[in-house]
Amino acid sequence: MLTTRLTHSFGIDHPVVLAPMDLVSGARLATAVTAAGGLGMIGGGYGDGEWLKREFAAAAGTRVGCGFITWSLARHPELLDIALENRPTAVMLSFGDPTPFADRVRAAAVPLLCQVHTLDQARQALDAGADVVVAQGGEAGGHGVGTRSTFTLVPDIADLIADRAPETLLLGAGGVADGRGLAAALALGADGVLVGTRFWATEEAVVSARAHARAVAASGDDTLRTSVYDIVRQYDWPAEYNGRLLRNEFTNRWHGREAELVARLDEAAAEFRVAVSEQDFDVANMIVGEGVGLVQEILPAGEVVRRLVQDAATRLGRWAPRTAATIG
Amino acid sequence: MLTTRLTHSFGIDHPVVLAPMDLVSGARLATAVTAAGGLGMIGGGYGDGEWLKREFAAAAGTRVGCGFITWSLARHPELLDIALENRPTAVMLSFGDPTPFADRVRAAAVPLLCQVHTLDQARQALDAGADVVVAQGGEAGGHGVGTRSTFTLVPDIADLIADRAPETLLLGAGGVADGRGLAAALALGADGVLVGTRFWATEEAVVSARAHARAVAASGDDTLRTSVYDIVRQYDWPAEYNGRLLRNEFTNRWHGREAELVARLDEAAAEFRVAVSEQDFDVANMIVGEGVGLVQEILPAGEVVRRLVQDAATRLGRWAPRTAATIG
Repeated sequence: MLTTRLTHSFGIDHPVVLAPMDLVSGARLATAVTAAGGLGMIGGGYGDGEWLKREFAAAAGTRVGCGFITWSLARHPELLDIALENRPTAVMLSFGDPTPFADRVRAAAVPLLCQVHTLDQARQALDAGADVVVAQGGEAGGHGVGTRSTFTLVPDIADLIADRAPETLLLGAGGVADGRGLAAALALGADGVLVGTRFWATEEAVVSARAHARAVAASGDDTLRTSVYDIVRQYDWPAEYNGRLLRNEFTNRWHGREAELVARLDEAAAEFRVAVSEQDFDVANMIVGEGVGLVQEILPAGEVVRRLVQDAATRLGRWAPRTAATIG
Repeated sequence: MLTTRLTHSFGIDHPVVLAPMDLVSGARLATAVTAAGGLGMIGGGYGDGEWLKREFAAAAGTRVGCGFITWSLARHPELLDIALENRPTAVMLSFGDPTPFADRVRAAAVPLLCQVHTLDQARQALDAGADVVVAQGGEAGGHGVGTRSTFTLVPDIADLIADRAPETLLLGAGGVADGRGLAAALALGADGVLVGTRFWATEEAVVSARAHARAVAASGDDTLRTSVYDIVRQYDWPAEYNGRLLRNEFTNRWHGREAELVARLDEAAAEFRVAVSEQDFDVANMIVGEGVGLVQEILPAGEVVRRLVQDAATRLGRWAPRTAATIG
């Protein structure tokens, strides 16, 4: 057992939290992670009230949290009511100032997780009263700022928390795909981890078999951070954000030529929509992080939790005899 | 004691290797790291034969290695002879194909360290017969490819080594600035670490007091990867490389406007030279990585080694009682 302040605080067995991946983290995946002793999170994403109600209903009876894209939630604030009515185990806010929503989450006595990518964002999260700060490095799949990496951001924010709000918990996110990553995040000062890509590659994730096969074949060198899919989907992400995903013909063609993509947007958007419907991942996007290189097979989510924890415990325990003599 | 395959193989006490930082890692710093139980490396850098002879002479009697910028060494291959005549404990090659030099290093019975930034480069290093692969993430100060980060690159390359050349050793590099980083790198599968920024910030480094003061005040958010100083110094780095360093007025002005910088090169180069001579770090470059945020004071290098190892051992040992029961 790897017990930490996180497991004690949330009453869970393992310090492993599912990343609330937009559409991918539905009730089936979230409940599987919770059932295995972690904490499942439903991916509220850009915001679809009917989808959210349905997934919460499907998860009824199992403790799950819910995550939102904050700048998008600001346009659909009623989605937070839907989440809170379902008594989530946690609400996670990412990509934007959490302050306008923090009071409602706190009033509902629901723990607030704030995902941050820089020290400045971490200070904002602490000011907003975050119960848990999620320090996400640029190796993560999906959106982020991408200027910091997990390896230094976690200890930097651990120091900030120790200085300013030591009761606040800390999760490491970005690149945690096996027991080595969990062990390393704990060594860096995190109380647990938020895992995306490794749970994306599970049987319960809302991901097609074709996408899964492509992920298993991919290496950690095969991703990049880009804005081309935000352009083609016409999502108006704030300028400081871009997203990591799998390189493909589409990114090879357009990354670095964004102005031209904007100029030919109708054509490219039509091509993208067709590709999504046909599951043509040479053109459609596959949102995974650098950790995809560590994914060798599609597994049940519960098995992922078990392997993460067992491997991390073994790896950390390996040092015990050698360190015991000097730390006594 | 944190003993690993690296400490056994090199006959050193601690799995900590000094990054051979160009001009910064002179004999004084390299011998201090070795004296403290790590492995000191002289920074051969872009290549200055007289400097190299002088530093090896000053280090005489202490085991130290030497590192080179490979594409630059290819233009001054005689520098490798100078190094090998001084019976270095190791030769490290970074930034370019090590193959043309590997035979001479091997013929001298000197261990070959190859620094890599991607899996493709790691395969090339193994093909060249590297004894140690240094997996450097983009959080590192100075040059690199910058597309991968330490947190995923180390386990990716650990898996590659296990598959193809399991006797090869692995160092993690990039962001290792305190005991948490050393513990995390070991957890990720490394046999040791290569440390730059934290040793840059020591009394023995060839760094001015003014630069040190600026580093102590900097946060981990204050660095970026850029090519503007390669342009202004007229170093012809291969296109895939750029370098991480401290943000300042010069990078604020020119990063993202490289074509204009090239067009106004004479003027900018003159301004840069003056700034270097005057230690004006608003314009002159300060080469540090993301780990600079974890540097709170300038210390003797030996004290850095002791704290790295003691803190890592304490941190890893902390998990022993909890993990022991499950791994038995």
